[in-house]
Amino acid sequence: MNKPILRKCLLVDEWVIIAPERGARPRQLELVEQSTEDSFCPFCPENEAVTPPPIQQWASPSFPDAPWGVRAIPNKFPALQIEEFPSPDSDSLYQTSGGIGAHEVIIESPEHHLGWEEFSPKHRGQVLLAWQDRMRDLRKDKRLRAAVVFKNHGAPAGATLSHVHSQLIALPFVPARLDKKVRGAKHFHQTHGRCALCAMIEREVESGERIVVHNDHAVALAPFGSRLPFEIWILPRNHQADFASASHAVLQSVADLASQILPLWHQALGSTNHNLVLHSIPFDFAGEPYYHWHLEMLPRIGQVAGFEWGSDFYINATASEVAARYLRHLAN
Amino acid sequence: MNKPILRKCLLVDEWVIIAPERGARPRQLELVEQSTEDSFCPFCPENEAVTPPPIQQWASPSFPDAPWGVRAIPNKFPALQIEEFPSPDSDSLYQTSGGIGAHEVIIESPEHHLGWEEFSPKHRGQVLLAWQDRMRDLRKDKRLRAAVVFKNHGAPAGATLSHVHSQLIALPFVPARLDKKVRGAKHFHQTHGRCALCAMIEREVESGERIVVHNDHAVALAPFGSRLPFEIWILPRNHQADFASASHAVLQSVADLASQILPLWHQALGSTNHNLVLHSIPFDFAGEPYYHWHLEMLPRIGQVAGFEWGSDFYINATASEVAARYLRHLAN
Repeated sequence: MNKPILRKCLLVDEWVIIAPERGARPRQLELVEQSTEDSFCPFCPENEAVTPPPIQQWASPSFPDAPWGVRAIPNKFPALQIEEFPSPDSDSLYQTSGGIGAHEVIIESPEHHLGWEEFSPKHRGQVLLAWQDRMRDLRKDKRLRAAVVFKNHGAPAGATLSHVHSQLIALPFVPARLDKKVRGAKHFHQTHGRCALCAMIEREVESGERIVVHNDHAVALAPFGSRLPFEIWILPRNHQADFASASHAVLQSVADLASQILPLWHQALGSTNHNLVLHSIPFDFAGEPYYHWHLEMLPRIGQVAGFEWGSDFYINATASEVAARYLRHLAN
Repeated sequence: MNKPILRKCLLVDEWVIIAPERGARPRQLELVEQSTEDSFCPFCPENEAVTPPPIQQWASPSFPDAPWGVRAIPNKFPALQIEEFPSPDSDSLYQTSGGIGAHEVIIESPEHHLGWEEFSPKHRGQVLLAWQDRMRDLRKDKRLRAAVVFKNHGAPAGATLSHVHSQLIALPFVPARLDKKVRGAKHFHQTHGRCALCAMIEREVESGERIVVHNDHAVALAPFGSRLPFEIWILPRNHQADFASASHAVLQSVADLASQILPLWHQALGSTNHNLVLHSIPFDFAGEPYYHWHLEMLPRIGQVAGFEWGSDFYINATASEVAARYLRHLAN
């Protein structure tokens, strides 16, 4: 059994990916912390031969001499694969499905040591354009229903390689958390006749209480119901359900705010270890009005403990307005 | 703002506890690993004065000379409090609720260094009886709708003190994950006319494929749709929705299996760091037939990364029958 496969819990309506090959993936960061200049990095230029051939590459004016500025490759240890294969039988008790999907790595810079906060504005805009290109391409496959772009930065956030990169997983099902967000947004739209996140942005911009930084086309705020201390959401100011339809200017504004959060976290928390997750509307509903795409930025300080795991009920020791005030103070 | 309070995310129908006092709680384990004999332990006998007065204590024949065998105290840094206080206003956008609830610590042994696997059978049975006593007591408070008993063992699992203990949180809302399980069980019962977990136990006992260990009244198995590698559920063999109604014999069987899992994990994974979570039916539905209480035992090896966090879609590198086979092999 080497192919990934999807299984569903008997009680909870959530799919799980069983991906046996991933158990063998490299754990560079468990052995060497950050300063990996002496160790071999598969994501650095000149080492391209050890990764699968690229799916797409983008040039960047910030790295005129590099062979590429941003590079998308298939994950060498994919959780899902685009090739069809026969899936085992489901029965009344146990549901399974073939592990159809895509799992890509977006190498965000040819320079091993740079982070988003050190990228030129143009280059970080290019990273979001690369995400967008990949999402536009993958949605053409009608077997796929949604894509999640995410980033594990630092070993405590689950990163196994330190070279700056993000990942994209496209799925044959809408993942549970995105589904809950989309349902919540739809319900709000039916009840209030407007987009929930437009209403949130309006309220937050008016009070300023939970806003951390903002610019022309986007705001970065600590959401009212934050699960984690110092959790940040970055939202385009204007209503838009679908990340794949965002303009270059909006992507640039979002990338600029995300990179501003990192040094603020570093000062406030002593670390920028985090997960970043892009929540865009599932492919089939791209034309619907009720959703509003956004980036979740989740700092990984402290451990998620048994209560949260067991209950999906989070205990957060820092109210979001307190976190926002502190980060604003550092920003000024 | 020092009182805990509940808030709800605008989109996702899940409450979050904002508990500002918990930011200051001790993090003994971050500084000293396991061997804490020289450091001060607030849970050891003779140090009772530093904790709040006990809610309930139980004698244990295994510790005839100790002042108590098992001891329940209020958490000194509670996520919720039983006292009413005025809760702030909710509005159409942001919902809040008073942080009514209980947060107790169950100190499971007077001996600092003992773990479940070293407890006498009688003593580990007594720990589950203590959980049951506390749950029976708390459900009398009609403001509370459910209780979660959980355990953080080891720093990677979120433990802040090494002395063996579990915790109980009773809530004014049914937590999201329990709610999903209960709904799933209800749906299965409506569709199939029987309890989902009874059907699962029957199937697993018949095939033996995912059973790890079993005894008179309980089975320990790796569930088909495991989110985590080597995840184990312990279930009473006979149908029972409500943990608070379980007989002493059933509790003893469940405690015996849980303690058998720990040394198997230690051999297989090199660590027993884990979270344990008791899923019993919410208080209001205690008489309903469709649920089946069980313990989830979740090993904490590796980190949960951005994809899982952002999507509630878990990637598991070890199929549960592979994990079960390996643990069975070690057990024999």
